[in-house]
Amino acid sequence: MLTRVGVKMIILKIGGSIITEKDSKEPKVDYKNLNRICNEIKESFSTENINADLMDGLVIVHGAGSFGHPPASEYKIGQPFPNEEFPEKRIGFAKTQSAVKELNTYVCNALIEHGLPAVSMQVSSFVTTSDKRIYDFDLEFIKNYLNNGFIPVLYGDPVLDEKYKMAILSGDQILQYIARFLVSDRVVLGTDVDGVYDKNPKTHDDAKLIEEVSSIEEIIQVESTTNIDVTGGMVGKVNELLSLAEIGVDSEIINANRPGAIGDALQNKKVKGTKITKK
Amino acid sequence: MLTRVGVKMIILKIGGSIITEKDSKEPKVDYKNLNRICNEIKESFSTENINADLMDGLVIVHGAGSFGHPPASEYKIGQPFPNEEFPEKRIGFAKTQSAVKELNTYVCNALIEHGLPAVSMQVSSFVTTSDKRIYDFDLEFIKNYLNNGFIPVLYGDPVLDEKYKMAILSGDQILQYIARFLVSDRVVLGTDVDGVYDKNPKTHDDAKLIEEVSSIEEIIQVESTTNIDVTGGMVGKVNELLSLAEIGVDSEIINANRPGAIGDALQNKKVKGTKITKK
Repeated sequence: MLTRVGVKMIILKIGGSIITEKDSKEPKVDYKNLNRICNEIKESFSTENINADLMDGLVIVHGAGSFGHPPASEYKIGQPFPNEEFPEKRIGFAKTQSAVKELNTYVCNALIEHGLPAVSMQVSSFVTTSDKRIYDFDLEFIKNYLNNGFIPVLYGDPVLDEKYKMAILSGDQILQYIARFLVSDRVVLGTDVDGVYDKNPKTHDDAKLIEEVSSIEEIIQVESTTNIDVTGGMVGKVNELLSLAEIGVDSEIINANRPGAIGDALQNKKVKGTKITKK
Repeated sequence: MLTRVGVKMIILKIGGSIITEKDSKEPKVDYKNLNRICNEIKESFSTENINADLMDGLVIVHGAGSFGHPPASEYKIGQPFPNEEFPEKRIGFAKTQSAVKELNTYVCNALIEHGLPAVSMQVSSFVTTSDKRIYDFDLEFIKNYLNNGFIPVLYGDPVLDEKYKMAILSGDQILQYIARFLVSDRVVLGTDVDGVYDKNPKTHDDAKLIEEVSSIEEIIQVESTTNIDVTGGMVGKVNELLSLAEIGVDSEIINANRPGAIGDALQNKKVKGTKITKK
């Protein structure tokens, strides 16, 4: 069983833009970042003790990056469609599922090569949504893996949806759901920016980092939603995290491109970023 | 929705020895066989009609071949172990899961390239075993995919086991479970031999094909169990199929290396092989 330094259970989200070359035409893993992050995770844990009685451990959720976004966008998965387009949509669903699964294999292999017992969980095998929100998600299997000392690795995936027939279930929504119902102690989101800004930091030199966010109104008007993706970008992310803060689970958005940031956050050290918390 | 020629629902098992080069040191896909089989599947179906009300379709189950067997054997997944070996076993479980998932990606991609809406289902995400037998398997998700016209693709996978902590859930057991509880109309197993023989056909020129098997005693003494693998070989296969025959679901073992055999079987044509049926 993993014994963590100072905390009980952490959920770590690794953004797709961190572990893939998001602007690459072909799906491409960013192995430099991926291996560095695996090292930081490895160094934050001791895997020597075995204690299968405690629910104590790490869950990793990763995004889709240059693997999932191109087919999901091309086939407009999650948008309404007439019935005659169903055959084509099915192929789009299948292609998207296969692409994100491929990325997940690379992520799990990298974790395993670093000695971490990463076990993949494919949400499209056991989760459905209704109006794009999780409707049916049996957490017993994640708990079972955690209780046996594994690190479950989940990822954004296309799923069947009651209203839209199919939808993209984002890593952020998965994270929010797991953190809520497994009552996570801490939630860390590694993104490609330092956190939430008052302006778009990629286009404004005077953009200021917002160290704490307690309501969506604080950020909805600002231009900081640069990393817009098919799963909703920063506003979507913060919305998921605010719903967690409501029930007392705080989270922090940090820059996973900074060497050491994820390691420090896992070890509960102070890291530059935005904390999402209830006032 | 897929409309099949003449039947309601078929489960097709494709042996790992057919779609991988089983004796290869490195995991290797046999693309010649895989693409040929995808073609035969494609030609057996019309994907033009859409009728999401019928539970009508195809489920594919594939084996692990040169992907899954090496790590499963190396780490002896499914054998009892002392608690201090748990960390190493976890790594073995993770490696095996990742390897079979990789093969599944290649299989799904080949099906998708042939225009078939193949959706992967990872049983280790939602199935556990007890004493190596399926204990907990929610079939609603397979049904949901079938009802929406997808082809669910499942595969042998390591799972958590109540007694042995972990076990290999074979494709044959998955097939048996699905066929039983979804009440499959037909079950076709594509292997690397023509069926069940009275002697090992690979070493005996005078081996005779047994066209019909109704009890395990008929084959238990014969030498025909050449393709022994960690999931039980031909005896294990026939045992699973006999338990299906008991409830009235017949199955046939055919040679998937013969061009056209799978296509003919899917189209309900007479194919050389062994029928497993109740007398």
